[in-house]
Amino acid sequence: MIDFSISAETAALRDEIRAFVIDEIVPYETDPRLTQHGPTDELRGELVELARKRDLLTLQAPKRFGGREPSHVDQAVLYEAAGWSTLGPVALNCAAPDEGNMFLLSKIATEEQAETFLRPVIEGHQRSVFAMTEPDGAGSDPKQLTTKAVFDGTNYTINGQKWLITGATGAKTWIIMADVEPNPHGPSGPTLFLCDGNTPGIVIERVMSTMDRNYVEGHGVVRFDDVTLPQSALLGDVGEALRYAQLRLAPARLTHCMRWLGAAERAQSIAVEHARTRTAFGKPIGEHQGVSFMLADNEIGLQQSRLAIWWACWTLDQGARGRHESSMVKASVSEELYKVADRCVQVLGGMGISDETPVAMIFRDMRAFRLYDGPTEVHKHAIAVQILRRLEDRR
Amino acid sequence: MIDFSISAETAALRDEIRAFVIDEIVPYETDPRLTQHGPTDELRGELVELARKRDLLTLQAPKRFGGREPSHVDQAVLYEAAGWSTLGPVALNCAAPDEGNMFLLSKIATEEQAETFLRPVIEGHQRSVFAMTEPDGAGSDPKQLTTKAVFDGTNYTINGQKWLITGATGAKTWIIMADVEPNPHGPSGPTLFLCDGNTPGIVIERVMSTMDRNYVEGHGVVRFDDVTLPQSALLGDVGEALRYAQLRLAPARLTHCMRWLGAAERAQSIAVEHARTRTAFGKPIGEHQGVSFMLADNEIGLQQSRLAIWWACWTLDQGARGRHESSMVKASVSEELYKVADRCVQVLGGMGISDETPVAMIFRDMRAFRLYDGPTEVHKHAIAVQILRRLEDRR
Amino acid sequence: MIDFSISAETAALRDEIRAFVIDEIVPYETDPRLTQHGPTDELRGELVELARKRDLLTLQAPKRFGGREPSHVDQAVLYEAAGWSTLGPVALNCAAPDEGNMFLLSKIATEEQAETFLRPVIEGHQRSVFAMTEPDGAGSDPKQLTTKAVFDGTNYTINGQKWLITGATGAKTWIIMADVEPNPHGPSGPTLFLCDGNTPGIVIERVMSTMDRNYVEGHGVVRFDDVTLPQSALLGDVGEALRYAQLRLAPARLTHCMRWLGAAERAQSIAVEHARTRTAFGKPIGEHQGVSFMLADNEIGLQQSRLAIWWACWTLDQGARGRHESSMVKASVSEELYKVADRCVQVLGGMGISDETPVAMIFRDMRAFRLYDGPTEVHKHAIAVQILRRLEDRR
Amino acid sequence: MIDFSISAETAALRDEIRAFVIDEIVPYETDPRLTQHGPTDELRGELVELARKRDLLTLQAPKRFGGREPSHVDQAVLYEAAGWSTLGPVALNCAAPDEGNMFLLSKIATEEQAETFLRPVIEGHQRSVFAMTEPDGAGSDPKQLTTKAVFDGTNYTINGQKWLITGATGAKTWIIMADVEPNPHGPSGPTLFLCDGNTPGIVIERVMSTMDRNYVEGHGVVRFDDVTLPQSALLGDVGEALRYAQLRLAPARLTHCMRWLGAAERAQSIAVEHARTRTAFGKPIGEHQGVSFMLADNEIGLQQSRLAIWWACWTLDQGARGRHESSMVKASVSEELYKVADRCVQVLGGMGISDETPVAMIFRDMRAFRLYDGPTEVHKHAIAVQILRRLEDRR
Repeated sequence: MIDFSISAETAALRDEIRAFVIDEIVPYETDPRLTQHGPTDELRGELVELARKRDLLTLQAPKRFGGREPSHVDQAVLYEAAGWSTLGPVALNCAAPDEGNMFLLSKIATEEQAETFLRPVIEGHQRSVFAMTEPDGAGSDPKQLTTKAVFDGTNYTINGQKWLITGATGAKTWIIMADVEPNPHGPSGPTLFLCDGNTPGIVIERVMSTMDRNYVEGHGVVRFDDVTLPQSALLGDVGEALRYAQLRLAPARLTHCMRWLGAAERAQSIAVEHARTRTAFGKPIGEHQGVSFMLADNEIGLQQSRLAIWWACWTLDQGARGRHESSMVKASVSEELYKVADRCVQVLGGMGISDETPVAMIFRDMRAFRLYDGPTEVHKHAIAVQILRRLEDRR
Repeated sequence: MIDFSISAETAALRDEIRAFVIDEIVPYETDPRLTQHGPTDELRGELVELARKRDLLTLQAPKRFGGREPSHVDQAVLYEAAGWSTLGPVALNCAAPDEGNMFLLSKIATEEQAETFLRPVIEGHQRSVFAMTEPDGAGSDPKQLTTKAVFDGTNYTINGQKWLITGATGAKTWIIMADVEPNPHGPSGPTLFLCDGNTPGIVIERVMSTMDRNYVEGHGVVRFDDVTLPQSALLGDVGEALRYAQLRLAPARLTHCMRWLGAAERAQSIAVEHARTRTAFGKPIGEHQGVSFMLADNEIGLQQSRLAIWWACWTLDQGARGRHESSMVKASVSEELYKVADRCVQVLGGMGISDETPVAMIFRDMRAFRLYDGPTEVHKHAIAVQILRRLEDRR
Repeated sequence: MIDFSISAETAALRDEIRAFVIDEIVPYETDPRLTQHGPTDELRGELVELARKRDLLTLQAPKRFGGREPSHVDQAVLYEAAGWSTLGPVALNCAAPDEGNMFLLSKIATEEQAETFLRPVIEGHQRSVFAMTEPDGAGSDPKQLTTKAVFDGTNYTINGQKWLITGATGAKTWIIMADVEPNPHGPSGPTLFLCDGNTPGIVIERVMSTMDRNYVEGHGVVRFDDVTLPQSALLGDVGEALRYAQLRLAPARLTHCMRWLGAAERAQSIAVEHARTRTAFGKPIGEHQGVSFMLADNEIGLQQSRLAIWWACWTLDQGARGRHESSMVKASVSEELYKVADRCVQVLGGMGISDETPVAMIFRDMRAFRLYDGPTEVHKHAIAVQILRRLEDRR
Repeated sequence: MIDFSISAETAALRDEIRAFVIDEIVPYETDPRLTQHGPTDELRGELVELARKRDLLTLQAPKRFGGREPSHVDQAVLYEAAGWSTLGPVALNCAAPDEGNMFLLSKIATEEQAETFLRPVIEGHQRSVFAMTEPDGAGSDPKQLTTKAVFDGTNYTINGQKWLITGATGAKTWIIMADVEPNPHGPSGPTLFLCDGNTPGIVIERVMSTMDRNYVEGHGVVRFDDVTLPQSALLGDVGEALRYAQLRLAPARLTHCMRWLGAAERAQSIAVEHARTRTAFGKPIGEHQGVSFMLADNEIGLQQSRLAIWWACWTLDQGARGRHESSMVKASVSEELYKVADRCVQVLGGMGISDETPVAMIFRDMRAFRLYDGPTEVHKHAIAVQILRRLEDRR
């Protein structure tokens, strides 16, 4: 039955997270280790320990790894609370890319792989990387993969270039997508590999200067120079990378939306406070409709986003793959929350484009959000393909 | 617990309504009695009888009047199905203004008033009118009421001018809002009266030519020339009209949204079919992203609207007055569905602006929808006032 | 040198037109012969005589036909003034489709054809038709032409179906686009024919019910049943219809923009007046930013449209074909003026969707404007093709 | 007469600027001295010398100071060319705030003041500051000025706080707005003072971290601690600061638009090149309408902006104060160019949010542009006030 109530247990946990983030994490927002290109690994370590002390670390982990394994809908409630500060998910260890990587590894890693590469990430001691996107386009269209793996019957040797590899610097758990070339020893095609970041041949050329500021250690440019891996480094089956990537993507897109919803609410709360207290032309600026309509649009946009996220999560909880739903939600929520952040900047005036409040940072992150995990246009295309394919059955 | 499933019973009834509308009502859309300014009373009578035969008439009526009294959420599901044809709600007797008037009367009419004025409307034998809006503005801002009622201790004598009075021609049950002037005999202020449309002094000057086409007998300009009513014609208490109007408004706004959601889905279904079958530049136009992105935006907009409606209904079902929620939903859903209809027109090309499909009619109705029950701007203002007033309590 | 001044002569003529339209034409806007689907031929006849009396008829005609042959820029100034009433261009004989047809015929008709088919149109005694668009899509993509002409060496026999044929009923001068089938006697391909509306086989099946209201006698559905025409009925060369259509289109798109600019200004002037005089919540509604920002956006949109039109006209006056420029201007001006009209409806509130003012009619016409002469999407596609083809030469 | 041609002389100078910027300035865009918060003074010095060598420095200066004193329209053409790189106007010494300050000083400084404070700025040896905006709002609404000047009959002593003071660090020529308190010695009210940046009591507390990146030395927070100035430091008359600020503002707003138009064109050129060369799903991404429509919208937006700027400049050249026109143009051009930059980011995908191209930087600057020199909302308010005040005279 249609219902919008949150269980008492989830609500309690949400409130705990909220209090933790406001009391213990928000003060770190002015820490210089939150650089123009994301928090440093050091800052991250400090935040993770705070969450560990409160027993709020990696709540989403599978029960077999000591987590609470909440439903997707419950995750939506909890991550929204965590997102109030962009550092909140970092502290709680539910930020990208680790969150999605943990999800994927918990689904397809062997037990041995999980112990070596997943458990330390869940425990907050290591970070992970998903090395897929490439300068020539293997982001929106993964079929353009140019990183190649040559299999000689014993080892895979990987060569190629990746970029926009989030959190590459300092990560230990590496998931690498490479195209296994046709070979006489077995299957070929896009494949995931799982290895240690210290594997010889993994070269982090540089960290890119990007607009967003919430990913630990930013986004790297990575080169694979004859990275040689044994067969045990295969993550899942050869040739199945795109399917696994999809498996990771639908929920990962949604968790992005959840966290950003929290950040957008934060921006709105700052804008509302400003509109209440700052005066112009003889009254609080919030009493000018030029400002108040922006706040109203934000109120609507935030609630719409929340409902959309809950709905898509619910379909996942019902067992759907949720690819269509998550595309709809990613496309609309990223655009909507971006507008919310943009209006907050505008309400704040000159202060809005400065780091006097976190709004400018949230705005910059939101701008990036419209692009990562597939630009809005790619999602719209996918949605439309679905619509046109659907057999009309209006009874 | 957050849940988006529809009960089996409601789903069954929805399917029944859907089948009825598609099979029996849609064919009437090309009936000439669906004029440029709405269905005639005669057409309405015919449609109502079809619904009566299927036992689908006035499902929403209170149980004491033989209805099923569904929850607001269930209404959302059912009215959406009815709205597939703009004539659907007319047939099922859940169209404006009767639907809202029945709701209001069932809440505040005396038993005697209900028997005389409400029951025949519920039974589909009569229509009703809510005479509030005035040429000089007592629509968005009801405080500007210029229709006056003078009380002499025995009778109220009403004089004034109303316009945009939906369904005035031929309606028997009239609810009139007038400002009782200060008098020595009792209280004063904006007051509702309930009377018969044949009461002397009620003059329908003309029917307005309006853009929308779905209200039975269109919108009238009405003059009250010394309309004299006894005290028993008071609907509720003197001076309470604005409160009653609000009581009617929150759910009435939502039922508008529900019905229009159905109509917008219809438009989208026609657009999708066109995009699938019509070719240009060598392929179905739906394969051009200029078209397919519009369809994707529509898919998103429809689902967002549905979720918003469900949520606001659910808050009403929980006992909330829902004024803030219904304002949010009316403002966003009317704008969103309008965009859906607009895109459908665009997808259809030249055909879209013609009556070869119902899309042009739906578009015109949607344009009006952004204005009636309060223009978007009035709702945004109300939402913002609420936001700025709310005490922040982020724990 | 960049200059935005209007010559004294043109300004004087513009003022004359403006006065004529306001004083003599506007009163006809409530004439019942301005039906839901356009002015009748009778009304048109009356209006034309008024313009003739003022010596304002067909000012744009070539000098050899007694016109003033103004530059495109001057036309922009004059047609904007004429457009203040949607009946203005009808009266002045510069409305679509006659205006574009006269332009085309003056370019490619033989002297004899011009005397028979063009002169009476210029003189306001006859109307003309451009029969191109077809139900299956030969509008946006003229290559889908299904109307066929069979040439037997002596005569062309035309069969096919057209729709959205503006002003078909009662027109004498017909330009018909048909695809001459390959034949042993001569060339083939899309071809224009010029003939009398009374030619046997031209059947006007019905007039379509469309949203717009400013075309004389609306838009017809036309069937060609063995319409047999001699070789002298060829308008220009066989196989050249698409080139001629383009020749007509660039300026015809612009004249649409000019006329609609005038109409949008009219809507804005009504909205401004309403915003000044109507009060809500204690002050003129124009002092609420929710309203005043719409008026400001309109002021900007109108001026932007005017500048864009002038610029494109100027490029035509310099001898450019102006296809790219006119696409840019048609796409942006139609969308922009539509928004202006939409905001005016919104400012007027309930009255905005009624025919109490001409704003609702202007809105409906504007909606159609986004589709005829190529939907916005087709123009954007053409613009982009041009951009991508253009060799960058940034020195 | 309406004309869109550029004089041969201006076109030649434009081409010279364009070549200079492309050849000599663009390479500096990756210079580390172009920091996250603007070019350093050192970088600026180097660029200025390049322009000096080409005789392109401070072209806009009055003839009496050795400049070319171009018309506003010619400035539009030249600054657009300079804006191709955001460092272009810095090199040519026509960037904000110096450009506006030079304009103001050339209008109201005494001869002596001009020699001391204006000439070195014109010659590129010093920079200048306009210290108006304050943390509590004296930006959009200058009446909220809290910086006070006390006059004791001999000296003015200034105390107060300013922020978002562009280029404060290192500037020598300071224009300070302060409110002269009522005093027995003479007039009072908002007043401009002109002094050296080394005057005791001028304290630059810190440089703000802001989103934009094109102002030399960024935006400072400034404190005035008993800054004591003689009467000769008065710039113009006491109490006239707001009038002078307006005098500066109309043209300064327009020169912003001109420079940003050039930057937006640059972004578009990068996006077009990307769309041509990058492939996805089997073809250049520019052939997907999801991308190509963005390029088309940009093409339109750029041309609309150019036309609007030219028009407003022309009104200034005709002697108008241009306050209404410059508000219209600032409001629409800033929003439009922002959309252009946003679409370019989107077209570039992941690369768009990185500093791999200057597009991300241009986007960030554009975001700020919607706020400085008055947020869009303040301009819309001003435009509407004007509209509502205007006496309708439609003859």
